[in-house]
Amino acid sequence: MDIQHYMNQLGQRARAASRAMARADTATKNQALSLIAAAIRREAPALRAANELDLAAARAHGMEAAMLDRLTLSDQAIATMALGLEQIVSLADPIGEISNMKYRPSGIQVGQMRVPLGVIGIIYEARPNVTVDAAGLCIKSGNATILRGGSEAIHCNQALAQLVRAGLQGAGLPAEAVQVVETTDRAAVGALITMPHYVDVIVPRGGKGLIERLMREATVPMIKHLDGICHVYIDDQADLQKALEIAFNAKCHRYGTCNTMETLLVAQAVAAQVLPALADRYAGQQVELRCDPAAAQILAGYPQLVQASEADWSTEYLAPILAVKVVADMDEAIEHINAYSSKHTEAIVTENYSRALRFLREVDSASVMVNASTRFADGFEYGLGAEIGISNDKLHARGPVGLEGLTSLKYVVFGHGEVRE
Amino acid sequence: MDIQHYMNQLGQRARAASRAMARADTATKNQALSLIAAAIRREAPALRAANELDLAAARAHGMEAAMLDRLTLSDQAIATMALGLEQIVSLADPIGEISNMKYRPSGIQVGQMRVPLGVIGIIYEARPNVTVDAAGLCIKSGNATILRGGSEAIHCNQALAQLVRAGLQGAGLPAEAVQVVETTDRAAVGALITMPHYVDVIVPRGGKGLIERLMREATVPMIKHLDGICHVYIDDQADLQKALEIAFNAKCHRYGTCNTMETLLVAQAVAAQVLPALADRYAGQQVELRCDPAAAQILAGYPQLVQASEADWSTEYLAPILAVKVVADMDEAIEHINAYSSKHTEAIVTENYSRALRFLREVDSASVMVNASTRFADGFEYGLGAEIGISNDKLHARGPVGLEGLTSLKYVVFGHGEVRE
Repeated sequence: MDIQHYMNQLGQRARAASRAMARADTATKNQALSLIAAAIRREAPALRAANELDLAAARAHGMEAAMLDRLTLSDQAIATMALGLEQIVSLADPIGEISNMKYRPSGIQVGQMRVPLGVIGIIYEARPNVTVDAAGLCIKSGNATILRGGSEAIHCNQALAQLVRAGLQGAGLPAEAVQVVETTDRAAVGALITMPHYVDVIVPRGGKGLIERLMREATVPMIKHLDGICHVYIDDQADLQKALEIAFNAKCHRYGTCNTMETLLVAQAVAAQVLPALADRYAGQQVELRCDPAAAQILAGYPQLVQASEADWSTEYLAPILAVKVVADMDEAIEHINAYSSKHTEAIVTENYSRALRFLREVDSASVMVNASTRFADGFEYGLGAEIGISNDKLHARGPVGLEGLTSLKYVVFGHGEVRE
Repeated sequence: MDIQHYMNQLGQRARAASRAMARADTATKNQALSLIAAAIRREAPALRAANELDLAAARAHGMEAAMLDRLTLSDQAIATMALGLEQIVSLADPIGEISNMKYRPSGIQVGQMRVPLGVIGIIYEARPNVTVDAAGLCIKSGNATILRGGSEAIHCNQALAQLVRAGLQGAGLPAEAVQVVETTDRAAVGALITMPHYVDVIVPRGGKGLIERLMREATVPMIKHLDGICHVYIDDQADLQKALEIAFNAKCHRYGTCNTMETLLVAQAVAAQVLPALADRYAGQQVELRCDPAAAQILAGYPQLVQASEADWSTEYLAPILAVKVVADMDEAIEHINAYSSKHTEAIVTENYSRALRFLREVDSASVMVNASTRFADGFEYGLGAEIGISNDKLHARGPVGLEGLTSLKYVVFGHGEVRE
């Protein structure tokens, strides 16, 4: 099989299908999504059987338990996929919306119309639900998509792809609007990220290694997510009860998510009060605290205390480990954040109005919060309805990326015969 | 001189200055712009003297007349630069605006705040006015900038940079917010486009050769402009008088601009009526017509008639030359445009409501127009106040790029102690 030739064919078909998708009206796109949701519910036994093939192969290859867990398509996961599609049906169609339409002195009217990006390539790892979530978001936003899932999930992904194709065709849309790459050859990824003629944007969902490789090789632009080194800063004018709740929730609600706090900064003036109270709660969850000298002095005797090294300030633990630093004031906190953060999500806990506004403005991250847990940085929590990822980039989409991030704004001009003088 | 070391220093200083610029309030940024405008007016003789050094060197190197013309800083051009800065003063400050703020069921309020991109690198060729226009847009949008102008304009650019630095300092802003690269070594460009740690985006302004080279080598994202292969489609339900005016203006108003029409498409049903009338007007301007067989048959006898080759459909002439093709209907016109256009600007002339709406939606270009000349695709005409370029890309900024294109939206969350359940 000539991979480059195969991928070119997928690209050509996707480009052709993207024109039909851009023209499709809201009711048609919703019909396709509803048909796919119904088929997923109906075909649950077949999907589980396909998933069982993947799981058997994965076990034979000695896949570790956490990965097996991510690969497993339970009845619950199947129901959630179908429900996710139905939630996308209920979202407003972003396509065709015209904003800022105004008359200009020349007589023309100028506005901006929201349109699909075109063809979106999505590269992801084990979780098979991404196949359906991503297909749903791309269909609703009028895009065609090429999905390249992990080789571990190939049977399950192909079974899902079959249902998606049938749903598209049932609504009168081209089946090629959603194509799943049917080879597990890694060269397919290399081809997909270097076809700017056929693919408008790549959305990689995976570990740092995958994304760094893509960044080096891709000629197609990416909406990408790197790591989440998120900070909470507890100000000396914080409500200490709020500070305890937020700092505990931001670390312990879930350890493996990108919006989990990895470094806690505490103002010197309240450190001796805040840190021991917080440590009591962390101790209950066996959280290891990697402390700078000032924090270590205050927390002497904490059972899992480690001296922080320089590397701790830029490490995403994704585990019950937290870096802790005492800072002089908010200025030092902002300086630390802008130096070490991965520009994902940061929060301040304070009751001081002026500091809250300054923190919001001066911290250069995709999400900046006052008196809330970093765990809220999420498409569902923000009201986007669904997300295809969270972008650390500043250009185009920043933060959780929903339907709107998969669109572009073009200028539209309504004229009446005007010419330039 | 170690170019990489020198560029790293510029980058570090720009990054530091960008933090102060992001914090600067509107009045301070406007004061800097007004001081620079006043200095440019006051120092006009010194600027002309610096320009004279560049011109003398350029003549000695045998620069051609058109390039010498672009390099010349006339009294008129100096006044226009100062006026341009004063117009930027009068534009609303985009920074800090919060949009879409709403309560979520969890209790948090979520919105999006407009913030500067950070550090913008601008690479341009002969015209020295870009130094001031770009500096002005970056200052107003709260960004730091590194400007790399053409080596031909080095004396003039340095004289202008001196005035910009003084204006920034006079307003209490860091002089390093606008830095002009002081070496003409081409390695400086290579360094600038590969410093993602210091530079957030590159805006190249120059010929296709420059931009294609940058696209191959850059690791910093670009807001870029390639060529403008713009189309006008005259529908069989066009108002023929409007069609004549628009097709004439779109080609003949100015030949060398990117929003000039390069290909005219005419519906078969009206071709025999439209083309001879239009040819009468083009003949008066000695416009060469490169015709497909059907158009050539209708226009037989036109003094500057040439048979079109396949290459003509994808050529940006920037000259009194026009490709002409007869199409069956709007569908064929849209198909031709989406195949050959550079996705800059396209117009339809029609009185048919449904076709107008379909053309607006289905043509995949940065600007799509009904009954108006493509020459309107321009930041001033669209009401952006000023433009740093016109983007052919779909991600981030599309079409004319003004202050807003130099900004990003970050999510801001106003909480009251909320944590995730």
